[in-house]
Amino acid sequence: MPKQNIYDNEVFFSGYKGIRDQEVNANVLFEIPNFFEMLPSVEGKKILDLGCGFGEHCKRLVELGASSVTGIDISVKMLEIAQKENADSKITYIHMPMEDISTLNDHYDIIVSSLAFHYIEAFKPLIVDIYRLLTEGGVLVFSQEHPFSTCYRNGFERWTKDENGKKLYLNLCEYGIERENESKWFVDNVKKYHRTFSTIVNTLADAGFSIEKMVEPTPDETILSQYPGYRDLFHKPDFLLIRAKKN
Amino acid sequence: MPKQNIYDNEVFFSGYKGIRDQEVNANVLFEIPNFFEMLPSVEGKKILDLGCGFGEHCKRLVELGASSVTGIDISVKMLEIAQKENADSKITYIHMPMEDISTLNDHYDIIVSSLAFHYIEAFKPLIVDIYRLLTEGGVLVFSQEHPFSTCYRNGFERWTKDENGKKLYLNLCEYGIERENESKWFVDNVKKYHRTFSTIVNTLADAGFSIEKMVEPTPDETILSQYPGYRDLFHKPDFLLIRAKKN
Repeated sequence: MPKQNIYDNEVFFSGYKGIRDQEVNANVLFEIPNFFEMLPSVEGKKILDLGCGFGEHCKRLVELGASSVTGIDISVKMLEIAQKENADSKITYIHMPMEDISTLNDHYDIIVSSLAFHYIEAFKPLIVDIYRLLTEGGVLVFSQEHPFSTCYRNGFERWTKDENGKKLYLNLCEYGIERENESKWFVDNVKKYHRTFSTIVNTLADAGFSIEKMVEPTPDETILSQYPGYRDLFHKPDFLLIRAKKN
Repeated sequence: MPKQNIYDNEVFFSGYKGIRDQEVNANVLFEIPNFFEMLPSVEGKKILDLGCGFGEHCKRLVELGASSVTGIDISVKMLEIAQKENADSKITYIHMPMEDISTLNDHYDIIVSSLAFHYIEAFKPLIVDIYRLLTEGGVLVFSQEHPFSTCYRNGFERWTKDENGKKLYLNLCEYGIERENESKWFVDNVKKYHRTFSTIVNTLADAGFSIEKMVEPTPDETILSQYPGYRDLFHKPDFLLIRAKKN
């Protein structure tokens, strides 16, 4: 199956880096805090980060006490930044698509992945590989785009709005049809893979995982008072986060 | 917390019985076959059916080899029909709201519930009670209205249609806000409780369950060729079914 590397496209890379350099966005407000809150204690733990990108999570995991972190990513450009900005003696960055992790000859206490799985076509083999790479009782924590986002078809109307432009409804279209969707995000033809809740849950369960926690972040009153636009997340959460334990 | 008994309302009861007497509907085509397919072997098993209604599932479970089935329901009228149409020496019908099952002094190998949990306000205590009533390794199989249905607010537009009336999108509104929704179904003020996927999953996980399977039924080609109207289920599955095991 083809492995998608949008991050080494120049146009995409600079657009993406622009978002990541923002001080406030949905990642900062919702994805990152929920991601770290869902983690078990990382103290003394050996961790693998799938799609580590700029390595911010690797660095933070070391700061939180991880004994070692291996970050892999398909993008050379991302790893160059990671080496420059988030190097550490306890971190090893490896240039590798996550579809190839079965070639790793090691085991990990915790495997994490932040906002990458929706780019992966072969989800089931990936989850099976992750299960195999975890130690007994090891934990997978991942975030991905919410299924309400991955099921969006490029060119369709995403929202029904009132005459003042206020979002009334999310236009949910063919949630039940799993598929590759092409969307434009800085560049054309970014491929995302739509999977339903049941497919995600069953893939984990069939591989032998117990799901311990699922989060679909929405804003609290503090965030809403500062950033009322995030009220839209009540119609469509941006992210889905899951913690699953190897039985 | 109030316990809802719509089924003893005369108007509701006759409307509901009319649907249940249909030979083909969404229950017959999707809910019932998926429900029985998800069950573990019931051979020799002691089973509790929460919200057993007319007792059809109780009867079928006995036919499939269950050693005993206890069916409970909040509605006297439903249980009268159950006693008349689906009596069996291995079945005991008890008039009891499922919120009161903690008073049962017994254990069950399998607990089932078909299309009733969305009427229950106190979901978490119910799941805790079910866990306690199951034997070690016991299994809960339940169906409920899909969260895309339970989050529907009475009076809102459910669909965006084209000029020919074809359904283009489900108008998904405030999925992320859990709440009691009043809707009209034969009678006014039928109360349904909207819970997100994550709340349902976390309630089961927190109680100690491992989710083994989740199903959101959609039609296959055979059903579509006969009943093309069910194509809408790709936008909005009607049902959510879950099998969870007591750890």
